[in-house]
Amino acid sequence: MKSFGFNSNHTVAQVIESQTPTATGHDLLIEIAAIAVNPVDLKVKTSITGTLEQSKVIGWDATGIVIEVGDQTSLFKVGDKVFYAGDISRLGCYASHQLVDERIVGKAPTSLSATETAAMPLTSITAWQALFSRLKINADVDAGKNILIIGGAGGVGSIAIQLAKTVGKLNVVTTASRVQSEQWCQQLGADHIINHHSDLVLQYRTLGLDDPDYILCLNNTDQHFATMAELIAPQGMICSIVGTQHKHDLDCLKSKSAGFVWEFMFTRPMFKTNDMIEQHRLLNTVADLLDQGTLKTTLSNTIGVLNPTNISKAHQQLASGSTMGKLALTL
Amino acid sequence: MKSFGFNSNHTVAQVIESQTPTATGHDLLIEIAAIAVNPVDLKVKTSITGTLEQSKVIGWDATGIVIEVGDQTSLFKVGDKVFYAGDISRLGCYASHQLVDERIVGKAPTSLSATETAAMPLTSITAWQALFSRLKINADVDAGKNILIIGGAGGVGSIAIQLAKTVGKLNVVTTASRVQSEQWCQQLGADHIINHHSDLVLQYRTLGLDDPDYILCLNNTDQHFATMAELIAPQGMICSIVGTQHKHDLDCLKSKSAGFVWEFMFTRPMFKTNDMIEQHRLLNTVADLLDQGTLKTTLSNTIGVLNPTNISKAHQQLASGSTMGKLALTL
Repeated sequence: MKSFGFNSNHTVAQVIESQTPTATGHDLLIEIAAIAVNPVDLKVKTSITGTLEQSKVIGWDATGIVIEVGDQTSLFKVGDKVFYAGDISRLGCYASHQLVDERIVGKAPTSLSATETAAMPLTSITAWQALFSRLKINADVDAGKNILIIGGAGGVGSIAIQLAKTVGKLNVVTTASRVQSEQWCQQLGADHIINHHSDLVLQYRTLGLDDPDYILCLNNTDQHFATMAELIAPQGMICSIVGTQHKHDLDCLKSKSAGFVWEFMFTRPMFKTNDMIEQHRLLNTVADLLDQGTLKTTLSNTIGVLNPTNISKAHQQLASGSTMGKLALTL
Repeated sequence: MKSFGFNSNHTVAQVIESQTPTATGHDLLIEIAAIAVNPVDLKVKTSITGTLEQSKVIGWDATGIVIEVGDQTSLFKVGDKVFYAGDISRLGCYASHQLVDERIVGKAPTSLSATETAAMPLTSITAWQALFSRLKINADVDAGKNILIIGGAGGVGSIAIQLAKTVGKLNVVTTASRVQSEQWCQQLGADHIINHHSDLVLQYRTLGLDDPDYILCLNNTDQHFATMAELIAPQGMICSIVGTQHKHDLDCLKSKSAGFVWEFMFTRPMFKTNDMIEQHRLLNTVADLLDQGTLKTTLSNTIGVLNPTNISKAHQQLASGSTMGKLALTL
């Protein structure tokens, strides 16, 4: 098998030829058809210190075919088309083949191309868990409530807008700062779009809506913390996926009985939580919703074949911070 | 009517004679039979600056009889026995009569004395909202999970232990630091008791349980924040009712997708939230559970008749910080 790894934080990807592994236990062996890139790829690459003896294979978004199953598997069989994000504590998907625990793998949607499919798993898991596991949004009681999504045009935002509308039945206010990203958010179903480079409290309140019961922060948490604390409705919850470098005043949320919760998509596989199979289930649901046309792929651009040059190209685009939706590469 | 108010933070209560008000709108006029004291009473009294022209009537825990109903009421009629905590932004219950919005009033339990009843509303509302509205504990999915209650012997702790066991079906680990408070927590149904003056992480882990999915902090949040962040299980939630004076590092909860939420029992009445009637409903449920014997009153001591001397006596006992359960006074 072939994979692509980094031995330092400043060099291009190295090509690694190695023996294709065997699937054991809960693992599936996947022959990868397409992958997508995410900000976490850059974060892990940048965190490499010095020069590694063995290059680090990154990447957590893939689709492919099951070519072997471990002895404790029961959800998939050889030949199944699947999609998954995987586990950050294992080898990544910048590769021709990969082992992945079947409990965090979903059946691939049947109506999408490989790149359209590869664009979906990591961000769908993140957005789904943020909305329905962390914020515990339940359309039965929450339909019609307001959510503010800070940073709607990126990878997670692009699917979070859709899931908040279609599954959560929420009124979605999101932020975007350029004409193209505004249009992108509108096409994905956002009800209102405000600009995160201007005063969010003022703009939100100008909309004439009740303060948001939910806020999903997909951008600089440190920068937006005070604004979110001011805007959140009584009994509201804030969820963020972007780590903080500063400490924050929680007391300003107290009189509103409000709270703050993290979504980190690798928590379930990293800690092998009892409910890690929920990722399998939610990916299956997302596949169904994509096939029904309820959700749209968030793929915005296919970079080309997976090789060191195209990996660099994808990383440069990601690093610009202005990527709408997702970037994919093929095998 | 007679009420008892404070015109400064260091004087004893003043007796105030005034005209009994009339019930309008959603209000009930209550003839009070017994009241209970809470740490929030001391907090509000201490926050008085200088000397007030009009003494401040405090107190948020009462039981009595409805003697008049406003024109927009529908839940109660004259003669009904009720119990309630009330609204911190209105006059308190250190009084013979009080107006209270019926949406935050419950029918009184029928099997308890007035003082046993007065002990219950504020702490039941706080504990119920903390467990079931903020931490969103649902016995259908959470039965058997672990909760750590820091400070179990106090007013809120004494009912939180019982609600977590009987309604939440949780395994309850609580903290106490004296032999009497340990016994008190045991009688209320706590499964394990550890000491908050020693290393909580070490003691908790010695129990051989999974890390707690829920932590309820009824004590110094600033002091316990790092410990709670370390102990909380992946995907777990921490709730506190004790305000912070310092900023805190939220990032240490990120890899676990954990969170922190406040419970402040006056949020619903203060902000007149759409769901403020939930306090009426939960108080009715608590009354039923008390009458069924599922819950026990947390009254530990009756101080005597409501007068300035007994108010001072009750406040001194509260201020000691070692009160188990609740202290009540009669009219």
